[in-house]
Amino acid sequence: MAKVCVSEVFPVYNFTFELPTRVHFGQGSLEKLAELKESGSKVLLVYGGGSIKRAGIYGDALKILHGAGLEVFELSGVEPNPRIGSVRKGAKLCKENAIDTVLAIGGGSVIDCAKVTAAGAKYDGDAWDLVIDPMKIADALPIYVVLTVAATGSEMDPYAVISDLSKNEKWGTGSPLLTPKMSILDPSYTFSVSKKQTAAGTADIMSHTFENYFTPVEGFLQARFCEAVLKTCIHYGPVALNDPENYEARANLMWASSWAINGTLSAGSGVNWCVHPMEHELSAFYDITHGQGLAILTPHWMMHVLSEETAGKFAEYGVNVWGLDPKADAWTNALAAIECTRRFFKEELKLPMTLHEVGITEQDKFEIMAEKAAAGSEGCYVPLTKEDIVKIFKAAF
Amino acid sequence: MAKVCVSEVFPVYNFTFELPTRVHFGQGSLEKLAELKESGSKVLLVYGGGSIKRAGIYGDALKILHGAGLEVFELSGVEPNPRIGSVRKGAKLCKENAIDTVLAIGGGSVIDCAKVTAAGAKYDGDAWDLVIDPMKIADALPIYVVLTVAATGSEMDPYAVISDLSKNEKWGTGSPLLTPKMSILDPSYTFSVSKKQTAAGTADIMSHTFENYFTPVEGFLQARFCEAVLKTCIHYGPVALNDPENYEARANLMWASSWAINGTLSAGSGVNWCVHPMEHELSAFYDITHGQGLAILTPHWMMHVLSEETAGKFAEYGVNVWGLDPKADAWTNALAAIECTRRFFKEELKLPMTLHEVGITEQDKFEIMAEKAAAGSEGCYVPLTKEDIVKIFKAAF
Repeated sequence: MAKVCVSEVFPVYNFTFELPTRVHFGQGSLEKLAELKESGSKVLLVYGGGSIKRAGIYGDALKILHGAGLEVFELSGVEPNPRIGSVRKGAKLCKENAIDTVLAIGGGSVIDCAKVTAAGAKYDGDAWDLVIDPMKIADALPIYVVLTVAATGSEMDPYAVISDLSKNEKWGTGSPLLTPKMSILDPSYTFSVSKKQTAAGTADIMSHTFENYFTPVEGFLQARFCEAVLKTCIHYGPVALNDPENYEARANLMWASSWAINGTLSAGSGVNWCVHPMEHELSAFYDITHGQGLAILTPHWMMHVLSEETAGKFAEYGVNVWGLDPKADAWTNALAAIECTRRFFKEELKLPMTLHEVGITEQDKFEIMAEKAAAGSEGCYVPLTKEDIVKIFKAAF
Repeated sequence: MAKVCVSEVFPVYNFTFELPTRVHFGQGSLEKLAELKESGSKVLLVYGGGSIKRAGIYGDALKILHGAGLEVFELSGVEPNPRIGSVRKGAKLCKENAIDTVLAIGGGSVIDCAKVTAAGAKYDGDAWDLVIDPMKIADALPIYVVLTVAATGSEMDPYAVISDLSKNEKWGTGSPLLTPKMSILDPSYTFSVSKKQTAAGTADIMSHTFENYFTPVEGFLQARFCEAVLKTCIHYGPVALNDPENYEARANLMWASSWAINGTLSAGSGVNWCVHPMEHELSAFYDITHGQGLAILTPHWMMHVLSEETAGKFAEYGVNVWGLDPKADAWTNALAAIECTRRFFKEELKLPMTLHEVGITEQDKFEIMAEKAAAGSEGCYVPLTKEDIVKIFKAAF
């Protein structure tokens, strides 16, 4: 296994920190949608299936938007693991109707679709270009969000993930231009999120945090912030599962989802993600639920990268997050911490723990998926080769 | 003693979160000063004594500002516990020269002076009005910062504290208009901060965090973030004291200073500060160092508000921040946590621990100071009467 990278220069990298999203948090915040008129008069409302209609959010939002004098166009039916086809449709709508604002009401998939739509509206070529080459994002309509699922953190970050399943491609793109201008976070909108999605969302938040926490160059304050987010997920994930209308739990998970990925945990650390690239291949080839894929892979990834060199960090995770005995030796605590993680996903969040359980019953694509995932592994906590990744897939099978 | 306030409604309050300061962090970030030209062509440079000249920052900054084509005016000699007189002088300079940007190079006192100067430049009356009534701040010049002391967090917050020692008055004011547009945080600029100021600054950061942590209505995630900042101060404060050029320590303390008070720790919690109002009276009457005053008062404040009702919270602080045994009973851990705090200030940070040591040798002003401090105590973790505050002053005497 390759060595852990360690910076020879500074323990805290230079960075520029900007967090431009204005967040309105709490029950009743929807009324702040009237602020959209600051950006223009024609809005593209992007959403998924009918759930926002059943929950009444759709009707309430339209009333506020119309009350503010805004003309509303619609892009509906955005899929989980959102497709480039929806983005193309949205960009076309924007261009044809001279739309000047994009509003996503939904979870991460809807927001990600809205983001690339907003950039596509300002781009002459095919929107897929913007997914495979973020440098091509030179302009975008302003993006607003009403969040209905706590998971991806897309409500406060510059990233979007779009799939072209016809090519088994799923890629992340990003630009400061894609960071939402304003996001409305009303925890009561997540009361109706299913147990499955609540668990997957919690695993997604935790995985974003792990990606920042297990890093070759760590900021001390940033690592403690990571532990804060992890403890919040561990404390409230099961509460939300068992008591879906628990406002305190939903509020903490929702706010944790934003902070896991809004740049605070990575600023000054030397972060390059390890588990997400592997999961993206699973989703691209098998269209599985992202958070479930992450929960399946994470404990096996942890076991695979555990070594004399990394045991101290896993032990620290165990002591600071899981409350393990600081006097126990590092290797013992590291193993216990990984076991805590696995049991939490399995027993507390009731997540599937094998690829089999989510319908991946053949190993024939492991090589091609691993090859693609390994491409971005340089600079990871522990860089992974194609062979490493195949081993992790097999262990998770 | 009055009861701890507890919200009957939501454990997490509604809030709007905005963090508009762009931060350039790390050695060599000074070059970003060229960005000032985004706001105009005439800059008022605000600074204190000669330390920024000795450190070479003054010369380097002027070179960059002139290189960017900016005309530079100067307000120098800003005092610790900055005086309204300096603000008046700065506002006058801005008005007379049609200055369009204010740049503070220094610590919290310099930044606070620059903030109210920036508002005073846009105000027709006397700048003291803006200190005693924040609602009168209706406009302000854009504010930029180069930070040279890790302490007040003024580099990323909307607050300023200004004194009129002729009246023994020291008041905090604030407005979103006072939040810096951009701040440069180069940890190496704090290598030359004295042991005394390093210790006082660390105590100040911790006190800001305590004010957010000990709150009647607590957000879980926010409380864990508080613990992250506290652990960072406890870990790196003594390192910076003993090894002033330790970049890692200076970087973590500097970033902690910003996060202790940039709104993240308080958003969603029901925060009203308890110890700062008491210390402000000490500074207003005796012009002592703010962070020293906080360190002297804090353990006595903790002992005074410790009760059956609050012991659980102090015990949580002890377990999560000081690593006390979670199996011990709450009262034992609460007392131990307070003792850890006291010993840390005294033995690790070498701070004075009595009012006597900082030159307050008479008790004759305790009553008047306590009366003023008690005015703002409503909504505190444990509301304090004038009598409570006199007791705390006497215990700290």
